[in-house]
Amino acid sequence: MFIYDYFNQFYDVVFMVNSNKYPLTLNRLFSSTLYKNSNKEIVYADKERYTYEQFYDRVSRLSAGLEHIGVKYGDKIAVIDWDTARYMESYFAVPMMGAVLHTVNIRYPPDLIFYTMQHADDKYVIIRDEFLPLIERAKSLFDFVKGWIVYSDDKTEITTTLNPVYNYSDLVRSYGRYEYKEIDENSIATTFYTSGTTGLPKGVSFTHRDLVLQTMAVSLELENDPIYLNNKDTLLPVVPMFHVHSWCMPYIATLNGIKFVLAGRYDPLNILKLIKKEHVTISAMVPPILYMLLKIPDAESYITENLRVIVGGGALSQGLAEMAARIGIKTIGGYGMSETAPVITLSTFVNEVLDLPEPDRSEYMRKAGLPIPLTEIKVVGSDGKEVPRDGKTMGEVIVRAPWLTSGYVNDPEKSTVLWRNGWLHTGDLAVVNSLRYIQIVDRERDAVKSGGEFIPTLVLEDFITGCPGVGEVAVIGVPDEKWGERPVAYISKTRDISKEDVKKYLLTLVESGKIAKWWIPDEFIFVTDFAKASTGKIDKKVLRENRAT
Amino acid sequence: MFIYDYFNQFYDVVFMVNSNKYPLTLNRLFSSTLYKNSNKEIVYADKERYTYEQFYDRVSRLSAGLEHIGVKYGDKIAVIDWDTARYMESYFAVPMMGAVLHTVNIRYPPDLIFYTMQHADDKYVIIRDEFLPLIERAKSLFDFVKGWIVYSDDKTEITTTLNPVYNYSDLVRSYGRYEYKEIDENSIATTFYTSGTTGLPKGVSFTHRDLVLQTMAVSLELENDPIYLNNKDTLLPVVPMFHVHSWCMPYIATLNGIKFVLAGRYDPLNILKLIKKEHVTISAMVPPILYMLLKIPDAESYITENLRVIVGGGALSQGLAEMAARIGIKTIGGYGMSETAPVITLSTFVNEVLDLPEPDRSEYMRKAGLPIPLTEIKVVGSDGKEVPRDGKTMGEVIVRAPWLTSGYVNDPEKSTVLWRNGWLHTGDLAVVNSLRYIQIVDRERDAVKSGGEFIPTLVLEDFITGCPGVGEVAVIGVPDEKWGERPVAYISKTRDISKEDVKKYLLTLVESGKIAKWWIPDEFIFVTDFAKASTGKIDKKVLRENRAT
Repeated sequence: MFIYDYFNQFYDVVFMVNSNKYPLTLNRLFSSTLYKNSNKEIVYADKERYTYEQFYDRVSRLSAGLEHIGVKYGDKIAVIDWDTARYMESYFAVPMMGAVLHTVNIRYPPDLIFYTMQHADDKYVIIRDEFLPLIERAKSLFDFVKGWIVYSDDKTEITTTLNPVYNYSDLVRSYGRYEYKEIDENSIATTFYTSGTTGLPKGVSFTHRDLVLQTMAVSLELENDPIYLNNKDTLLPVVPMFHVHSWCMPYIATLNGIKFVLAGRYDPLNILKLIKKEHVTISAMVPPILYMLLKIPDAESYITENLRVIVGGGALSQGLAEMAARIGIKTIGGYGMSETAPVITLSTFVNEVLDLPEPDRSEYMRKAGLPIPLTEIKVVGSDGKEVPRDGKTMGEVIVRAPWLTSGYVNDPEKSTVLWRNGWLHTGDLAVVNSLRYIQIVDRERDAVKSGGEFIPTLVLEDFITGCPGVGEVAVIGVPDEKWGERPVAYISKTRDISKEDVKKYLLTLVESGKIAKWWIPDEFIFVTDFAKASTGKIDKKVLRENRAT
Repeated sequence: MFIYDYFNQFYDVVFMVNSNKYPLTLNRLFSSTLYKNSNKEIVYADKERYTYEQFYDRVSRLSAGLEHIGVKYGDKIAVIDWDTARYMESYFAVPMMGAVLHTVNIRYPPDLIFYTMQHADDKYVIIRDEFLPLIERAKSLFDFVKGWIVYSDDKTEITTTLNPVYNYSDLVRSYGRYEYKEIDENSIATTFYTSGTTGLPKGVSFTHRDLVLQTMAVSLELENDPIYLNNKDTLLPVVPMFHVHSWCMPYIATLNGIKFVLAGRYDPLNILKLIKKEHVTISAMVPPILYMLLKIPDAESYITENLRVIVGGGALSQGLAEMAARIGIKTIGGYGMSETAPVITLSTFVNEVLDLPEPDRSEYMRKAGLPIPLTEIKVVGSDGKEVPRDGKTMGEVIVRAPWLTSGYVNDPEKSTVLWRNGWLHTGDLAVVNSLRYIQIVDRERDAVKSGGEFIPTLVLEDFITGCPGVGEVAVIGVPDEKWGERPVAYISKTRDISKEDVKKYLLTLVESGKIAKWWIPDEFIFVTDFAKASTGKIDKKVLRENRAT
């Protein structure tokens, strides 16, 4: 622990004493880029466009409005929205005034959304009108919320039963500009929740310093082949803004003075149209989104020359990379997780790879890649030693970097499991080849990742066992061309039930907000018996192996 | 002041308590790049070559040797050398063990070299054999030095009267590898001296954090047009390693995994040969060095395709930029000073400049440019307000950034003048154009900059007045094609003396180590009277203006 952190425990250090020190805060990231890049644009789908200078004005006005209604240093402010200009404004306005941005995962089932908002103790909520019904039906759960800040893209009057309610546009319009104070770089800037397998989502949080350093390091790595990120680029990430800060892309654009495009609610054809209209040169997405874009008829006609796409959140398959290459899109892989802010590796090319003949070279772009600057990675066996660089021997990925989360919110036990011997343990299994490129081969933690988002299998299994007639349940992920992985449920029966019965039961859980619809397994397989591990638990490895053969 | 700094004053915080935090230290910068870039090369002229992995081994062995002879946390270690592999080893080995690297300015006159070493209180000195006579003749001044670490490129036996003496090669060979401990990022890493006008050189120092952040920010800016820095590049800076960390180029190469070439003692033809032999793609230098390289017959035949040169430490003239462009070298300007680590602006292109027709565009590459990431710059008039962006109105450049020196060593008075209202005052005058590009037009501080190094005019004037027959003296800088600026002395006589008398007198001061030979003015002009400013001081502005017309 830094002496500073130690000291900080006992004192309520809020704003820095004014000094010559220039902290690593989002405030400074934004204000330092303004001088040079004031005319660069931030574009919200086909709806709005701002220069950085105009945008900064809106950000400071939003902060002033938030201060007016009572937002204080350290207050959590939830945002429930698609990738909109309002969300982007919150990305800066909330942390820059010392409050904490809670990016609510809107792909969670309603019950988990409510749980995370309660757990975070959100004091204010910025919410787009179309999400109001979601909250209104459960408003009695939210007595801790001091204010609902609502907005609409098209309506001027928004009616809601939520209370007290504020109009976003009024807040931005009415209270002038906020004069930002210097805040400590170790102040918490963001918080959000990550799904594990062992029950409820876990909260992680990141400081201003974490975000600035992640932003710098990712930007530095992206200066290499084949991305060559620079200030002439236009960036449109198709990574939801609730998903690990959209991989910090809004901050990367701002720091580097890059034109930024927001996709709004995702619609593959509209995204392609935006790419064409705004001459997008760099994007980022999970494999299923890339797949959807490429499947649009005549996708090629929308693609900008030299479009480069960073693919993460799941393995980039050979087929998908080739589909992209055929229409001139360059792809690279990457790897990270919620706990790592998220990026820790990218598969940019080093000289040895560039010297390889083409078919070998393109194999590298699909790997997790190499650690980005200021990141140390080891792939270690159960003995704690690094595995040989043979492309075969598996080990767990452990990592050190300046921006990793310090632990799970209010969960010292799981935090201790995460951090052992000064290394963050990802729980992901990888192999390393002779050029030191890392390839993720399995997840030690038992989850299914569909469309870039985790389905917590243990939670899902627990719900399935609630269905009358179901005995034991094991959910595993199986490879899926479109979604990366989809869940399949193995079930032992206690009486005669049909697959339809189980599916109907799960649909009632969707209705009541307990699970998300996309969690429902694609396949139900009845078994009479399960192979068990020595601990007595179902041995999922056997299920996976049988499935594969 | 950060609370942390405040706390730190009272406690002798040396090594960090082990924790999950990953500090911004040179240790981490180097160890995090090793995994990925272990096979990249560090080349020392035509003498030696190492992979980063081999080099790291030598660095850790040098630290072990230094520890063995007694080097402690916080000890200053001076280095007196050209740009060699030994110097590069010291760049890492000294700060990474918590000691402080003092990069001695070998272009100072001997007396100033001695003064800075005394002022820094250097505990150990790493010195190349050819500099031994310089120190030996004054060894009685150095009773505070606990050890002289000598090396030679070619001799195996080095004889010296200095005592106690250690052989560099023995230290590297004999004590195994040092196990680096985690050190606090706010530990001092480097110190060196900068010439002002008001007497003796002033010490500045930089922390590990300062250097890591400067390295990251410069690397980020260099990803833009026309430099496009990336890991395929080969970097050979022709900026002396004693001169503001060679503009952090050794650290930039290491962080980004770039092949690095050391020039040894500068010789224009040998530098060109190195550029060719090692396929150098990026260099950095002051205008006079570029001029010398371009003047070598058939320079073009040595130049790598797509060689890009960062020019700083003086204005890049149109003639010089065009000379370079004619043989295919792309140049950009930059600006900074010792106190700023040094880089704060670079004249990389933003879109608006790229859209300009060619003759207009190339004008921009010669400006100081735009602030690099995480840097805020203002050009302010005497009223403290920003000057209009009209390309005409002059103001002082003031700056904020995370890596600026906190002040001058043991000089709170000058530190207070440097830092006012939370901004570092550069003392340099600039104009700003409509695209916000900054152009330095004059130095508020009264110094002459020749060959990229300052001649402190007030010191020089003081020496000239020591010459019998000299009354008042004013030294001003006049533009010089080769050196950027050269000094001219205006002298009033108290009795009849000749210009030769003054010159001879100054040569005796060179002999005795008081001034450097290159400080001797190119021209002596006798005057009967000086125009005086309201303070009674000689009004140099009048001299400059008369000279110009």
